Amino acid sequence: MATVAGHLSLDDIASAADRDLNYETPILRLLSTSKAKGYDTVCIPLTNEKWRARWKKMCLSPEDEAEKDDNTERISEAWRSNPAFLREEVNVTRLDEAENTIVMLSDWLELDSQDEWVRCDAETALMQELSYASYLNVLVAVLPPPRNRAHIPSYARAIRACLEKIPYMHLSVRVPVYDPVIFQPVTPTPRCGSPSPSIDSLVASGVSATSSRSMSFPHTTEEEFNSTWEMWDVIRTICESHPRLSLTLDLSPPLPLTAGVLDKWLAEPTRQIFLPASTFIANAKSYPVLPKGTQAFIREIMKLQPTIILSGTNTGQHSRGGEKSYFQYIRHLEKTSPGVQAMKKSGTVENFAIGYQDYLQAPLQPLADNLQSATYQTFEQDPIKYANYEEATFRALLGWPKTDERILLCVAGAGRGPLVARALKAISRAKREAFVHVVEKNPNAFVTLQERQKTEWRDQVQLHFGDMRTLELPDKVDILITELLGSFGDNELSPECLDGAVRFLKPDGISIPSSYTAHIAPLSSTKLFNEVRGHEDLKKPETPYVVMFNAVNILSGEGGDGNTGSRIQECWEFVHPTKNVVLNERGLPVTNSHNSRFANLNFHIPHAGVLHGLAGYFEAILYGSVGLSIHPQRKDYISKDMISWFPIYFPFKDPLYLPGNSELHVSMWRLTDQQRVWYEWYAEAFLPVMIPVLDWTVDRASASLTAISTPLITPSPTIDALDVPPVVNKTEIPRIPNESSRTETRLVKVGQTALHNPGGRSSWIKL
Amino acid sequence: MATVAGHLSLDDIASAADRDLNYETPILRLLSTSKAKGYDTVCIPLTNEKWRARWKKMCLSPEDEAEKDDNTERISEAWRSNPAFLREEVNVTRLDEAENTIVMLSDWLELDSQDEWVRCDAETALMQELSYASYLNVLVAVLPPPRNRAHIPSYARAIRACLEKIPYMHLSVRVPVYDPVIFQPVTPTPRCGSPSPSIDSLVASGVSATSSRSMSFPHTTEEEFNSTWEMWDVIRTICESHPRLSLTLDLSPPLPLTAGVLDKWLAEPTRQIFLPASTFIANAKSYPVLPKGTQAFIREIMKLQPTIILSGTNTGQHSRGGEKSYFQYIRHLEKTSPGVQAMKKSGTVENFAIGYQDYLQAPLQPLADNLQSATYQTFEQDPIKYANYEEATFRALLGWPKTDERILLCVAGAGRGPLVARALKAISRAKREAFVHVVEKNPNAFVTLQERQKTEWRDQVQLHFGDMRTLELPDKVDILITELLGSFGDNELSPECLDGAVRFLKPDGISIPSSYTAHIAPLSSTKLFNEVRGHEDLKKPETPYVVMFNAVNILSGEGGDGNTGSRIQECWEFVHPTKNVVLNERGLPVTNSHNSRFANLNFHIPHAGVLHGLAGYFEAILYGSVGLSIHPQRKDYISKDMISWFPIYFPFKDPLYLPGNSELHVSMWRLTDQQRVWYEWYAEAFLPVMIPVLDWTVDRASASLTAISTPLITPSPTIDALDVPPVVNKTEIPRIPNESSRTETRLVKVGQTALHNPGGRSSWIKL
Repeated sequence: MATVAGHLSLDDIASAADRDLNYETPILRLLSTSKAKGYDTVCIPLTNEKWRARWKKMCLSPEDEAEKDDNTERISEAWRSNPAFLREEVNVTRLDEAENTIVMLSDWLELDSQDEWVRCDAETALMQELSYASYLNVLVAVLPPPRNRAHIPSYARAIRACLEKIPYMHLSVRVPVYDPVIFQPVTPTPRCGSPSPSIDSLVASGVSATSSRSMSFPHTTEEEFNSTWEMWDVIRTICESHPRLSLTLDLSPPLPLTAGVLDKWLAEPTRQIFLPASTFIANAKSYPVLPKGTQAFIREIMKLQPTIILSGTNTGQHSRGGEKSYFQYIRHLEKTSPGVQAMKKSGTVENFAIGYQDYLQAPLQPLADNLQSATYQTFEQDPIKYANYEEATFRALLGWPKTDERILLCVAGAGRGPLVARALKAISRAKREAFVHVVEKNPNAFVTLQERQKTEWRDQVQLHFGDMRTLELPDKVDILITELLGSFGDNELSPECLDGAVRFLKPDGISIPSSYTAHIAPLSSTKLFNEVRGHEDLKKPETPYVVMFNAVNILSGEGGDGNTGSRIQECWEFVHPTKNVVLNERGLPVTNSHNSRFANLNFHIPHAGVLHGLAGYFEAILYGSVGLSIHPQRKDYISKDMISWFPIYFPFKDPLYLPGNSELHVSMWRLTDQQRVWYEWYAEAFLPVMIPVLDWTVDRASASLTAISTPLITPSPTIDALDVPPVVNKTEIPRIPNESSRTETRLVKVGQTALHNPGGRSSWIKL
Repeated sequence: MATVAGHLSLDDIASAADRDLNYETPILRLLSTSKAKGYDTVCIPLTNEKWRARWKKMCLSPEDEAEKDDNTERISEAWRSNPAFLREEVNVTRLDEAENTIVMLSDWLELDSQDEWVRCDAETALMQELSYASYLNVLVAVLPPPRNRAHIPSYARAIRACLEKIPYMHLSVRVPVYDPVIFQPVTPTPRCGSPSPSIDSLVASGVSATSSRSMSFPHTTEEEFNSTWEMWDVIRTICESHPRLSLTLDLSPPLPLTAGVLDKWLAEPTRQIFLPASTFIANAKSYPVLPKGTQAFIREIMKLQPTIILSGTNTGQHSRGGEKSYFQYIRHLEKTSPGVQAMKKSGTVENFAIGYQDYLQAPLQPLADNLQSATYQTFEQDPIKYANYEEATFRALLGWPKTDERILLCVAGAGRGPLVARALKAISRAKREAFVHVVEKNPNAFVTLQERQKTEWRDQVQLHFGDMRTLELPDKVDILITELLGSFGDNELSPECLDGAVRFLKPDGISIPSSYTAHIAPLSSTKLFNEVRGHEDLKKPETPYVVMFNAVNILSGEGGDGNTGSRIQECWEFVHPTKNVVLNERGLPVTNSHNSRFANLNFHIPHAGVLHGLAGYFEAILYGSVGLSIHPQRKDYISKDMISWFPIYFPFKDPLYLPGNSELHVSMWRLTDQQRVWYEWYAEAFLPVMIPVLDWTVDRASASLTAISTPLITPSPTIDALDVPPVVNKTEIPRIPNESSRTETRLVKVGQTALHNPGGRSSWIKL
């Protein structure tokens, strides 16, 4: 269940004072009433107006210069040298008041003020507040929101310093989804050291949904919609994605939201959602509900299990439903969240994956390692995979020409035998005369196969112990059935194994699967970036991981302008049986070079984001129209609820910033030598830029004529020739523009992230 | 002296065969004649046309499909599984032939071919050639040039694999300064697997300076002039700036060159310059000379001590001077290279710095550590610094009002006493009655001071042992002389020390220096990046270094469009004596917060490059117009040949790619607490982009009217309100464009490099 917190205002705290003798303090009383209303926790402002007044007096220049006095400066310096609160400046003083609550620091602190000295003093105050909160064992502190793009680096640097000095506590930056300024008549940035810093300019508590009936948004661009995320991105980057840095997404800005531009927050550590009553609108019955876009977004982000902080619910903003209705509405959204519901429903991959979200697993190497019986057991639970294999075998048998001879099948890499059982079922359904050869190289699983032959299959099958790349079968078969697929299709070396196994097949025989493809998409995920970095300590940075994605965002959009492809793109395909391979006397390929692959894919990146890696998927055609797929856009049509494969993740070591409307060019290699197979990957970012283009000419002829006609005094062989006329622009090649200049759109390179995987090592897949 | 290599062509090798029985092989004969001509070494092609013919037959599809046969493919696969040369395919077979030579690999290998299989086979061939060269102990191999931008990642990946497999050998990528295609009618990219790959399309040996008298360059932009560097940048990046990866800059492209666009090559590991006779033009006497731009560039790059490979000098391209004249011309350029000459001339900082170019030194901490006598001795050798201090003191004394009282001076931080001696000299020159108090906290240096007082200064001075921040003097002085400056001005804590020492000064007293400023510029240097990375193993990544720059390039240009400043920009200033500081009862500041500083600087980046760090400089005003400066553009006017300070280097951990015509926003902090001072730095890149801007409106009013007028069936409090009309564009906020759309130029963020220095640690300067 989603955690819901009630936000206590300074008014709430004031009005709770001295009313009820059952509680030792007003805060304890408020905690108790909040719990009674159903809230899981509360969010308390740490300080009050008294502290604000003292800080202003000490740290901001008075409006009237005459008020300035030396004594104030002396007091300020004394505070700076030893910052401390007075008892009446804070709302919380006891451990039991702070226990399990979220504490909100003074939101009027301008860590990114235009004025350098205000920034310094705000940082000192922030450290004082955090130090006090730490004393009270506070676990989560919500920081004042960033406001001023020009000084975000200073804001971020201050937070980083706090993260290093304050232990244990999680610091959460309050960031509005949009800068509400873009929806309002432009207001000037608050002046340096202005006496009354206000958060209204960015945190739009003042702009309620009902206050303006029609809004005009002049000059709004992708960059402006992106501006608060861009600020957060600077903060996260400067704090090097610190594991105790998170974000409180402030949904105060009133615009109806749609998913696309908000998806980026799914890839961030969004731990709290700040949701004031003013964001709610009234439905026809005058009950508070959320605009459609906001609803959809909250339903989606609930899979990250954020705490929802409801604020202002007792201020009567909606005429019906009362204080409780906001809370109930959140519970309603949870019940209708597809992600949350899928996790609860047994049989879904989401349910199967509980506990494995964003958890990095090394891909299996079933060729090099012999799997455990328990591993087989887990995968044999798949409700879809084996059904589809049976269906594919059934259709292949039906389609096989009827002759006197019995049809020969081979299940190669049989494991504990689930595909053998399905093949026998398909034979019986198809009512055809058939026989199954069973090949397995795992000596332990081969015992299980013998057991099953004795008890179940009897003379319908013949078992063969050995590696399908070297073993010989007594007969050539008509249908070869294998399941050697990894999350990326070929990453468990299905192509290499099938190069051996196709020797069992008659020239016109069928391979199930008949082909498979690998697909990738550019991915952003602070969580996965941190996970991989954690693994880096273990010296494992160069390998792809199998992972159930959760806190991620696919950065690409549907391209299709001719230059870029779709959101998820195909890298390459393997088709079986393979044609045109040079074989040696034993029927095996001379080299493995025919199994190397390369893809160069161009993605359209509609919104700015940070690239952390590539998401990888596979899709296989078993036979005819029967397949297997974990491709996000197609899996539900091909093999819904199949649980055997999570996606694969190819991480980059260095994150790459991608501007909105950019292109990402990805190179992906499947490489091989005689001993192993591995992948490498690389990405470059480009931005289409309209630039002036000049047509120009350098006339060497006249220059060299000049040289010839000029008498030279010194006949030294090293004297200069007069080559071209003196160059005027020092940093440019001499150019003589012809006629009018034009503009053209060019792709300008804006960044790259270096090849992560230099030829394998830890990522080698052993042949 | 610059190393000059003679390039041997296949014709040279052919014509040397079987002519002279004094030499065992033609190559040994050519080595001997090259040496006789004055060349330091030769550059030999490793393979010949026989190898090229075999490789083509094996690896390229025949033009005529009918020629295709299974047997060829069988031969190719055999080669792929075990690549090897035949004796007659290589020019070099003996260790003594290869000794100390540069070997050029088959330049027709297309590692970046459009055809995936050609790329694979070219990589196999490259590895075969390198393996053979390694067998012959070759130390430098020149690789085939990159040609095809679309497949440079594949080229780079292959080189990286070679660097990992081949030990010891330096691999040098041959890169033309420009893509000559931009100076020619556009030729189509060679087709996939075309039977005859040619290097002419990029390495413009075919375009001689005399072949076209007037050239037209349509559509040429910064990006196109940059294209070969951009290819090199991908290679260097994918190879992670491997220390054995270097570059052979090919100066074949014929355009007269000017410095600005070429400076980028100074920041790269440019180890060889390939200079064909065709690049030379004829002077009035018909001797071969280089165009002015090329001259200037070679003079400049000689400071990196590259090997100059002269080619085609025996092909009679110029009517006078003969083969020797090219060689002599190179020696002439060397003699007129300002960098080389400055290094040779004693008394210059370049000469003083020999052996220290690009060598990282930890900045001194004279406050925390007591310096050695030898360190004092080194710095006392400066011919300029002490002269300027004497002159400043002299002028301050002259300007001091004449009264009956003698003028009191104080030299604080006197070290071994050089400034005391100069102060006494200035007093004697100014013919004023004066007395000098001398303060020093280094107990060892204080012994030297006592020695000098006894033998030189006698009763002209009084010595005081102690820290100027705590010591008390018997009298207040008129002139306070200190030299506590670091390469960045304040980085040896001059401001903090002077906060203490100004207590010695009368209210109207003079401080020498009276002020100093810190300056930075964005820097590119693969060398320094690798040096810092080397230090990273020592866990010292977070500190600035003192370093004499050599293989570097300042990326900024003169801005001045209003948005960006100059090439080198001032961060901040310290003025002494400081005003308006709150002091405690002992006259010392209560906190050090007044010595914190911040700068936010915008640089114009005219040409694409990779940012590795910031170059830092200082400038000080001693008194009036007498100063000290290591600012590259001003030092020669203020304190020419001063040797005491090399620049400072603030490295970034992650390099940042900067597109041409971008803006770099740098944040720089000087931070302080009660125990220490440190710097932090951060950079963000922006690109001005013309984008369409729409004026638009979302009319909430009508939407909410719609909602009210629609009868709802279910009275549930959680049912949706109909907020806005359905959104058509899924990834965009609904927008209704008003009137015509316009374009505006906006700054789009394209990248950032994270704060390198998270609050100090190794970079703390101890107070």
